[in-house]
Amino acid sequence: MTDTFKRLEGASLDSRYPLGEILDAIRFNDDGLIPAIAQQHDSGEVLMMAWMNREALEETLATGRVCYWSRSKGKLWRKGESSGQQQHLRSAALDCDGDTLLMQVDQTGPACHSGRRSCFYVSLEGEDARITSAPLIDPEALYGKR
Amino acid sequence: MTDTFKRLEGASLDSRYPLGEILDAIRFNDDGLIPAIAQQHDSGEVLMMAWMNREALEETLATGRVCYWSRSKGKLWRKGESSGQQQHLRSAALDCDGDTLLMQVDQTGPACHSGRRSCFYVSLEGEDARITSAPLIDPEALYGKR
Repeated sequence: MTDTFKRLEGASLDSRYPLGEILDAIRFNDDGLIPAIAQQHDSGEVLMMAWMNREALEETLATGRVCYWSRSKGKLWRKGESSGQQQHLRSAALDCDGDTLLMQVDQTGPACHSGRRSCFYVSLEGEDARITSAPLIDPEALYGKR
Repeated sequence: MTDTFKRLEGASLDSRYPLGEILDAIRFNDDGLIPAIAQQHDSGEVLMMAWMNREALEETLATGRVCYWSRSKGKLWRKGESSGQQQHLRSAALDCDGDTLLMQVDQTGPACHSGRRSCFYVSLEGEDARITSAPLIDPEALYGKR
């Protein structure tokens, strides 16, 4: 843990620190990334988890439109740029050791590339895994035939 | 993405697959780990994110008590074994590409080692970061003086 986040453990409620100092202290992994969890702000549903580098995080905070780093494409990924299903930021918080981001978002339509609202649809139940949701929109309608 | 998770994208609601097949298809990272998000089952609050290897995941599913892999200690970490603040599993789901786990849990007291209910208390707001919660319990009472 960085000294900065260690120090924040004892910080009192509503105390404030300069954003730049906190961003400098984030513990990005060896690839320069942190996991970012997107939770629908009103329903509380966890929609997805993806990755951000510092540039993606700063863009997200500046524009209010969620931007990830696509590990498969190796570039910034403005959520919805292909599918039209954007994610708008309501608030964002880092965790106690500065290596994970939780965002409250407002998601248009499906967050998942499969066309489902949430990515978490493979439930582990006893001896089985069970599919717990169906697509809201056919993925071919989101992305065209692939 | 593995073929297994690619195939599940098109699976219909409530279809079932053998658990072992799904566990074999999980995309653990180069360290053999996946991120595991813990969400309080009734309030919807996201409490923490930590890591699991296959052994930790299988123990969690078998016992119903959440077990992570501690990267700092290099061993299995049965949540609450030092602090007494256990995490009990209600349900668990993998995401669309099989590399992240979301758990619905029932958390006793604080989930965070700082004594706070949730680990996500460093809110990024404009030019500042703000501390958004206070400890429920003094961490010295949880762990003894360190």
